[in-house]
Amino acid sequence: MGWGDLGVFGEPSKETPNLDQMASEGMLFLDFYTANPLCSPSRAALLTGRLPVRNGFYTTNAHARNAYTPQDIVGGIPDSELLLPELLKKAGYTNKIIGKWHLGHRPQFHPMKHGFDEWFGSPNCHFGPFDNRALPNIPVYRDWEMIGRYYEDFKIDLKTGEANLTQIYLQEALDFISKQQASQQPFFLYWAIDATHAPVYASKRFLGTSQRGLYGDAVREIDDSIGKILKHLQKLGISENTFVFFTSDNGAALISAPKQGGSNGRFLCGKQTTFEGGMREPAIAWWPGHIPAGGVSHQLGNVMDLFTTSLSLAGLQPPSDRQIDGIDLLPAILQGKLIDRPIFYYRGNEMMAVRVGLYKAHYWTWSNSWEEYSKGIDFCPGQNVSGVTTHTQEEHTSLPLLFHLGRDPGEKYPLSFASDEYQRAMEQISVVVRQHKATVVPGEPQLNVCDKAVMNWSPPGCEKLGKCLKQPKSDPKKCIWPH
Amino acid sequence: MGWGDLGVFGEPSKETPNLDQMASEGMLFLDFYTANPLCSPSRAALLTGRLPVRNGFYTTNAHARNAYTPQDIVGGIPDSELLLPELLKKAGYTNKIIGKWHLGHRPQFHPMKHGFDEWFGSPNCHFGPFDNRALPNIPVYRDWEMIGRYYEDFKIDLKTGEANLTQIYLQEALDFISKQQASQQPFFLYWAIDATHAPVYASKRFLGTSQRGLYGDAVREIDDSIGKILKHLQKLGISENTFVFFTSDNGAALISAPKQGGSNGRFLCGKQTTFEGGMREPAIAWWPGHIPAGGVSHQLGNVMDLFTTSLSLAGLQPPSDRQIDGIDLLPAILQGKLIDRPIFYYRGNEMMAVRVGLYKAHYWTWSNSWEEYSKGIDFCPGQNVSGVTTHTQEEHTSLPLLFHLGRDPGEKYPLSFASDEYQRAMEQISVVVRQHKATVVPGEPQLNVCDKAVMNWSPPGCEKLGKCLKQPKSDPKKCIWPH
Repeated sequence: MGWGDLGVFGEPSKETPNLDQMASEGMLFLDFYTANPLCSPSRAALLTGRLPVRNGFYTTNAHARNAYTPQDIVGGIPDSELLLPELLKKAGYTNKIIGKWHLGHRPQFHPMKHGFDEWFGSPNCHFGPFDNRALPNIPVYRDWEMIGRYYEDFKIDLKTGEANLTQIYLQEALDFISKQQASQQPFFLYWAIDATHAPVYASKRFLGTSQRGLYGDAVREIDDSIGKILKHLQKLGISENTFVFFTSDNGAALISAPKQGGSNGRFLCGKQTTFEGGMREPAIAWWPGHIPAGGVSHQLGNVMDLFTTSLSLAGLQPPSDRQIDGIDLLPAILQGKLIDRPIFYYRGNEMMAVRVGLYKAHYWTWSNSWEEYSKGIDFCPGQNVSGVTTHTQEEHTSLPLLFHLGRDPGEKYPLSFASDEYQRAMEQISVVVRQHKATVVPGEPQLNVCDKAVMNWSPPGCEKLGKCLKQPKSDPKKCIWPH
Repeated sequence: MGWGDLGVFGEPSKETPNLDQMASEGMLFLDFYTANPLCSPSRAALLTGRLPVRNGFYTTNAHARNAYTPQDIVGGIPDSELLLPELLKKAGYTNKIIGKWHLGHRPQFHPMKHGFDEWFGSPNCHFGPFDNRALPNIPVYRDWEMIGRYYEDFKIDLKTGEANLTQIYLQEALDFISKQQASQQPFFLYWAIDATHAPVYASKRFLGTSQRGLYGDAVREIDDSIGKILKHLQKLGISENTFVFFTSDNGAALISAPKQGGSNGRFLCGKQTTFEGGMREPAIAWWPGHIPAGGVSHQLGNVMDLFTTSLSLAGLQPPSDRQIDGIDLLPAILQGKLIDRPIFYYRGNEMMAVRVGLYKAHYWTWSNSWEEYSKGIDFCPGQNVSGVTTHTQEEHTSLPLLFHLGRDPGEKYPLSFASDEYQRAMEQISVVVRQHKATVVPGEPQLNVCDKAVMNWSPPGCEKLGKCLKQPKSDPKKCIWPH
């Protein structure tokens, strides 16, 4: 989902009444970011509180490339990383992940080896259907073992777009919450559904109900589900004890628009890019009785902050033996403070851009290559800002492209290099960048090596189901990351 | 102002708390349009309830050109047109216009000759300063006579952007409302301020207060003023007796962005064009005790509807001796009904596009000419939709370009001509267009002839002020309308 998919952010069909109400009862973040314009690194950052370049969720196979965890990825979340649920356990929390894990699917990367007590969902995206020869269908796990595969046991009808996955994930969430409330146990629920990712689906009740087509149907189902989760918390009488945060892992995939992709509002480009459309996210904090209703915050926020903020809520400190990028947002949320902090926009291990206050400096610009673009792959459809949405990797490190996001949220008008404003802003930004770079000790890159042998051929539990597939011979190769 | 300038429509700085609150207390229109992508025709349409092609506010000097009422325009609102205040008078209303009239500045076009009882404001935009030789400065009128000129008696500091005009216009509004309330007389106030038009200004208290720069300062001052007007109605105890509608006369002028121009959100292009960015407007109806708070309407609306709706509120019928394009919105506003009606997008006397339901068909496309574009005049900065934002006038009358505005509000993905959906939609649209064209009897075009002699050299009252200027010899010519 993108920033512009919410009614409260100006989606012209205004079809997210529950998220809009969540905002009116809680706090809306206008300047909230993900840590990466792609899913896996963004999710790894959320759960570790650390930039992907630190936690290993990046590639060095080529310069400034986005990478994620497809079925043939060899890497995953390193044991050395401390995940939010591992830490929350120490405060007595029960941790559940529902939906897409995306931090590696080999046995050592299983979410329950990294702090989660329960899992219902899948390790990868719901791509498919596959023939189980060249590629296996993606497994769906309950806890340690798979209980079926997408398209086989969990239907997704690509013709009609019908699938019940969001409903299943919703029921899992409601049941888990009920169970925890009954047992009076504190809980962390990571509701990481994989709608609205392409191929887009919705359940029958939502199909055809949106002005926006199938993508809008999926948004409406998510919106409806979130409304149900919040109401469930209220019904159980634990809403004032439960901090809820809604956000997304990257900008809307404009490449899939309009049928399978959403909106980043007036922001430039989308998923895969380090323009605002790729990384500015919808974000709402909700905690009745604590967060003032209808609050609006310009705090620069990041998914990594949810790590530190959650620890703070649980009375825990973030680890002191490593660099943590997330900050505690509670002063912003509860007292309306504005904490000075930068936002870094990475692609692979390259810092492409940085935001300091209302200024954003691009040190590198790239949408995608001419080669990919000529195949019709366009991350910025209908948008072309000369010298900005470049199809070659353009280095600006000696004279960064500078935008003022207040006057120019769409990144269309770079400031004049000769202006006083440019000089003043860049002086400040240069210090921030220098300080940042001094702290970066890159983790071992996890997204470099691909091997067909590591695909989901025989996940644990496959024997019981008769769903074990033949694993091909190992043949590790450098993964190809075109973007 | 543009659709995207309001917080409630996703402006990322969210700096319009009063308009956002007005929406939360009233009804927000998501699909509301102006009758023309330029000021004068749009305002003439609002006050007559008729398309500019009918009321004469268009040009035939060249094909599909926007035109307005600069100082040298010879034409203006014809006597044969019935304006809203003329009709409201019959129901005992006192009518006041505050701000920009823009329906002609020669004596016969004076607003008080067309139904208004009071006027405070100017006949044209606040362009200037002029030297009073080649061009006179624009007069400001109180009722029948000028009381000064912009830049001379009403300061606008182009260097700092400081001007008190919006404050003056606000005070006029508050005083008029107080007077009417005291005398228990029904009133129609047309608060037609000319901020945020370039050159953009704001009063000292607002200068430098917006994240968005000077343009945002102006928006904030308008927002603040509207809040004060609504509070004034409440304080006087007449809010439940007063219908208030907020809208704009054309899309944000992206050509002036980012310093002097606003935002049309994710809609395509801006002022001067018949893409959504040129004509989709912010719109809020407010009437406590009558309009359900927090309502949202997808009714296709148009500024011309304010004519018919206002008559309906006053218990009057629209004139039956002429074609009226505005509809009564009260069923949509009070009962949540959706009235089936098309929206026509004109440029000059050419119907460029039509919207029926969620479909919009372009019969002609044009942003502006290559010649103008090569001078840096760009109505679609950073946006380029191949075959859509064309720099030659492209005729599509035999096979219109069709967009689905629900799935594709940004008009980026024309439907395939061969699709069933295209065929079905165009069948319906063709009937609407045929019916519409059959009703169009063009008025005498008012915006064809320009003459330096008709400028504001010696407006009534100039003698008292010693501000009469020497009128040059008459030399009528065809006005040049490049866009």
